Amino acid sequence: MNVYIIGAATTKFGEQWRVSPRTLAKEAAAAALRDAGTSVSHVQALFVGNMLSGMLGGQEHLGAFFAEELGTGGAAWKVEGACASGGLAIHAAVASVLSGQYETVLVLGVEKMTDHKPEDVALALMGAGSDKERLAGATFPGLYALLARAHMNAYGTTQEQMAAVAVKNHFHASLNPNAQFQSLITVENVMKSSCVADPLKLLDCSPISDGAAAVVVTGTKKQRGKKAPPIEIIASAVATDTLGLAQRESLTELKATTEAGEHAYRQAGVSPADIGVAEVHDCFTIAEILAMEDLGFYKKGSAAAAISRGETTLGKSKRLVVNPSGGLKGCGHPVGATGVKQVVELVEQLRGSADKRQVQKARIGLSHNVGGSGATAVVHILKK
Amino acid sequence: MNVYIIGAATTKFGEQWRVSPRTLAKEAAAAALRDAGTSVSHVQALFVGNMLSGMLGGQEHLGAFFAEELGTGGAAWKVEGACASGGLAIHAAVASVLSGQYETVLVLGVEKMTDHKPEDVALALMGAGSDKERLAGATFPGLYALLARAHMNAYGTTQEQMAAVAVKNHFHASLNPNAQFQSLITVENVMKSSCVADPLKLLDCSPISDGAAAVVVTGTKKQRGKKAPPIEIIASAVATDTLGLAQRESLTELKATTEAGEHAYRQAGVSPADIGVAEVHDCFTIAEILAMEDLGFYKKGSAAAAISRGETTLGKSKRLVVNPSGGLKGCGHPVGATGVKQVVELVEQLRGSADKRQVQKARIGLSHNVGGSGATAVVHILKK
Repeated sequence: MNVYIIGAATTKFGEQWRVSPRTLAKEAAAAALRDAGTSVSHVQALFVGNMLSGMLGGQEHLGAFFAEELGTGGAAWKVEGACASGGLAIHAAVASVLSGQYETVLVLGVEKMTDHKPEDVALALMGAGSDKERLAGATFPGLYALLARAHMNAYGTTQEQMAAVAVKNHFHASLNPNAQFQSLITVENVMKSSCVADPLKLLDCSPISDGAAAVVVTGTKKQRGKKAPPIEIIASAVATDTLGLAQRESLTELKATTEAGEHAYRQAGVSPADIGVAEVHDCFTIAEILAMEDLGFYKKGSAAAAISRGETTLGKSKRLVVNPSGGLKGCGHPVGATGVKQVVELVEQLRGSADKRQVQKARIGLSHNVGGSGATAVVHILKK
Repeated sequence: MNVYIIGAATTKFGEQWRVSPRTLAKEAAAAALRDAGTSVSHVQALFVGNMLSGMLGGQEHLGAFFAEELGTGGAAWKVEGACASGGLAIHAAVASVLSGQYETVLVLGVEKMTDHKPEDVALALMGAGSDKERLAGATFPGLYALLARAHMNAYGTTQEQMAAVAVKNHFHASLNPNAQFQSLITVENVMKSSCVADPLKLLDCSPISDGAAAVVVTGTKKQRGKKAPPIEIIASAVATDTLGLAQRESLTELKATTEAGEHAYRQAGVSPADIGVAEVHDCFTIAEILAMEDLGFYKKGSAAAAISRGETTLGKSKRLVVNPSGGLKGCGHPVGATGVKQVVELVEQLRGSADKRQVQKARIGLSHNVGGSGATAVVHILKK
């Protein structure tokens, strides 16, 4: 497609009580621009991925808000699609660059969640879902618990297998200095953690996080005095499904993921077997199992056992490492930042600069970012 | 640019107590698709322009929300830039179509404001502005009052001249069956209306409104069995400025408008003298005066007198009619819908189907959509 990422960076993810969204955004943007060997003066547009700033902080108009803070001129606006906002912002940047509208776009994903009361955050997050489910008192852990139960019933998936997703992602996170959690956990730890929404326990759930991530997207391979090679975006696909679970035909598949994945593979001219590293949307452990199947890496009903066996774990995997950043579970999930962070991780992996968590011989990477309980899915495929 | 609008429609704007955002969106989208002679099955993406749904209604993820409601498949997301959200959504659609990402995009601008307490709406609207100004208690009427005062001091602009903007736009609105206000007003009415933020009076201010507008944007002139000719988008430009007024060099110019305008004229290869009809962002009467100058239609300090003389009034104008829809002041201002409605009005004018408010011989039209107190400006130029 002739669209490249020439700079990529994230802040540390986690509970960052001392910093504001402005500080997070500046840190991520400055690091991404430095990584690209460029400056704001070469950026014609800023796309901001964010979900909660209006509902929790009363601040909208984040394009202009952060453009002022970062000193980018030109155009700026916010792209919102719940927890998929970051991936959507990159998708929009790809279009803008391909269209010739802007030569170079800075994409910023940012979210500050810990400043607010947990019940306010939980309610605001339900803004990503169906109004009927929200009014009925559903929460996202509850909705994903339903998906987990359906998968268990259909395929015999066990709670221990789901726990193995969290164990793997905490292990990967322990190798990532920017990850929220640096501690190793065991299947037993997960099984003994408090129940959030049966069968999901506390350690099956991604945390509330603060963080920002940024990438510099441009239409030319030409470098401006930087060292790392540009990484090509060879597919960018989006699909949608119903907001509510009640309207879905199946609860054991996220159809938007399947559709976005198929579309992306066609665009890129690759198959799931070509992907060596993937960052998928593990907002809950069951979500990673669904993603592995819906993206075509495993047949329906077979991903949970494979993950349990370590087939997608760094150092054990022979084919595909999943969520080397630690994923949403281990690295943290500042919602608007997540989709951008996934792509930052792929860029580092494909460049070979991922240090202790480097996936060997990864040449093609896939990111998968979901909004709500699967109403939006965004898939990017990157190549070195 | 080879981007065309093949369908365009708005709902009635105003206080629509009996209808939901869903109903408004469905009505506008169905009418735009009917106007295009096409159906949702030919739409690959839905871009939603909206500002307040999250803050006032707790509902985000509006791309998927309305995609479900309208039955559009494919991609969907929200574009937000305060009161410029609608214009920005069209700008994003232009990029997507030009890039080849999507062949046909449905752009929906929608806002439901009257269901909420006025003080909640006023506070939520300040989410478009600087957090410092918001915390200091500023409101948008207050900020635009400052701009009005600066213009009066610099150029001798009078309150009666500002009132003339409202009189003109109410006259135009009285010819538009979809406009919120159908009543003619006089300069005296405006001058005697209650003071909101000196020197701005009630009738200098655009109202709180409900409404939706939709356009179908596509990359081919080929028609699918429709009658009206496609209207070409020959420029689409965005510029940003600081959110707060305190950081600006000048209070008598909205720099983002000037920059977006200049960029759009260059793209289109036209000059202000070529524009026969314009829809500009008259959230307050002073805003239309600023727009006329910043877009190059009048020299600084001379627009107010010209508007007063009727130079931009339907039936009197020899060169350029401004806000034939009634503008934000007369037609109403459901914030996320406004930028789309402006383009719908231009499409009708350029097609020659604007009925009683038809501008004679209009061949090129310009729309100008502003976010906040000038932090974002979006300019589109359309040609029949």
